[in-house]
Amino acid sequence: MSVYTPVSESELAKWLRSYSVGGLVALEPVAAGIENTNYFVTTAQGRYVLTLFERLPAAELPFYLGLMAHLARHGIPCPAPIADLSDRYLSSLNGKPAALVTRLSGRSVERPGTSECAELGALLARMHLAGRSYAEYLDNPRGPRWWRAAAREVRPYLDLGRQALLDEELRFQSLYRFPDLPRGPVHADLFRDNALFEGSRISGVIDFYFAGVDCLLFDLAVCVNDWCLVDVERDRNLDLARTRAMLQAYAALRPFTALERGAWPVMLRAAALRFWLSRLRDLHLPRPGMLVHAHDPEHFGEILALRAAAAEAPWVN
Amino acid sequence: MSVYTPVSESELAKWLRSYSVGGLVALEPVAAGIENTNYFVTTAQGRYVLTLFERLPAAELPFYLGLMAHLARHGIPCPAPIADLSDRYLSSLNGKPAALVTRLSGRSVERPGTSECAELGALLARMHLAGRSYAEYLDNPRGPRWWRAAAREVRPYLDLGRQALLDEELRFQSLYRFPDLPRGPVHADLFRDNALFEGSRISGVIDFYFAGVDCLLFDLAVCVNDWCLVDVERDRNLDLARTRAMLQAYAALRPFTALERGAWPVMLRAAALRFWLSRLRDLHLPRPGMLVHAHDPEHFGEILALRAAAAEAPWVN
Repeated sequence: MSVYTPVSESELAKWLRSYSVGGLVALEPVAAGIENTNYFVTTAQGRYVLTLFERLPAAELPFYLGLMAHLARHGIPCPAPIADLSDRYLSSLNGKPAALVTRLSGRSVERPGTSECAELGALLARMHLAGRSYAEYLDNPRGPRWWRAAAREVRPYLDLGRQALLDEELRFQSLYRFPDLPRGPVHADLFRDNALFEGSRISGVIDFYFAGVDCLLFDLAVCVNDWCLVDVERDRNLDLARTRAMLQAYAALRPFTALERGAWPVMLRAAALRFWLSRLRDLHLPRPGMLVHAHDPEHFGEILALRAAAAEAPWVN
Repeated sequence: MSVYTPVSESELAKWLRSYSVGGLVALEPVAAGIENTNYFVTTAQGRYVLTLFERLPAAELPFYLGLMAHLARHGIPCPAPIADLSDRYLSSLNGKPAALVTRLSGRSVERPGTSECAELGALLARMHLAGRSYAEYLDNPRGPRWWRAAAREVRPYLDLGRQALLDEELRFQSLYRFPDLPRGPVHADLFRDNALFEGSRISGVIDFYFAGVDCLLFDLAVCVNDWCLVDVERDRNLDLARTRAMLQAYAALRPFTALERGAWPVMLRAAALRFWLSRLRDLHLPRPGMLVHAHDPEHFGEILALRAAAAEAPWVN
């Protein structure tokens, strides 16, 4: 259970008086999530998620909340922050920065098929198009600079083979900076558990707290590396049909530039590297008080090795 | 059917490409509404209302759309305008100013009981509290100045008794300006057909195109004059239980000031006068091309006469 900061019903009821969402009906801690404390909150008006930010830098929070608000008012089904009576999205509760956002319905799909992958691809394209008019800026906090810092920290814990993979990948990635790839706000963590479906329709994208400005293509690579594996446990190559479904649905709304086509294999590797590094860090250098088991880093170590070895990625027109 | 400006599926599909709401699935004209052309629009993403503004002054539209956006992001269940890819709420379609807003679920209640009246009172209070941080300003377009202009136009159509009622009411209202009553954005037209319920819960407030800045108490008087009649057809006195339920639920969230308590009977009369005048105008001076039958003005003529005669209004602590 990821509740680092307890909130009682009476504390919350009092806090909600500075919002326009009606009185508290129910409060329920949320088990998922490792970065923040989350509660499901039901009021006379509706269903919300209360988030207490435990370790995100306070200076970054307005970027995340503003992005969610921006996307929501463009029709993207993402949590919409609720403004309080002082017209602020960010408040504080029990000593932590806190925000109230709408709770979306639907559930995540563990084994997406081609149709779910196409739904996600289309939504990602719409999100990228809507995000381009967002005025705030935050460099992707898990970008190349962070890779290099994290790599220094985790390298001593790797065996020789994985050290070589890491060194080679950092060298390879350093050859590419792609200043001309289309950029904008990206979710950057849109794994299957961060998308909600109602039947075959995508009904929500959640957890924007790794968002930042980066190549739009990077976002797609993060998705493909999680949604389109042949078999999550046994074969981490890309399933051609699902990969193609996602890319085609995306490109139908935002066609790829020639440069993006060329950059795709690099992006797949960059996306694998980023999550390999963060999982290695969570495993070997856990933060004090972290309440969840770290994911196996080797899942992404193998994905990175496979992508690096792949001669060519499937591409679409 | 109030469709002044037809929109075809192909015209709309093309227009929707400048939004992030997915492709068009269905388009259906809306029969209700006399000021604008409305369509229900279903896309891959969700359900919306498309409004083409037929006669509202273009300069006022940003106030209405901005107010709806402001209230929606405070958790008030009202139509939320969708921003287009240029980040604008207001666009144009087939030569008319046009906007896309979210479509709320629920249905209006023809014969509200005390519990619906209490739901409305609470929501109105929350709406007023949330609205106070809205920065835009538009003087209520149907305020005292408009009353006087409209009265001059319709007076010749009234019999002597109603002429006297009108003259006396304008004189009476001119004695009261209440510069110290709490003011803010008000809906100003929250009749039963502009509120939606799901079961016993209020799920939406719609049609903000008569909104403006006025005394908050005026908004409540408009509601009471429509929601709390003993019998809409046969006895237009106020039902004490429903009136009290609405006022108490409101005051629990925004307690009335002493000045408001004193002003209440004046507000009930002002609210009746405003709708008597607009209905008289719609009946005797219909706009060219107006497609609906005017409501009977005498409904509000009688309400005004009754409120003026009432010695004292029910009041609550």
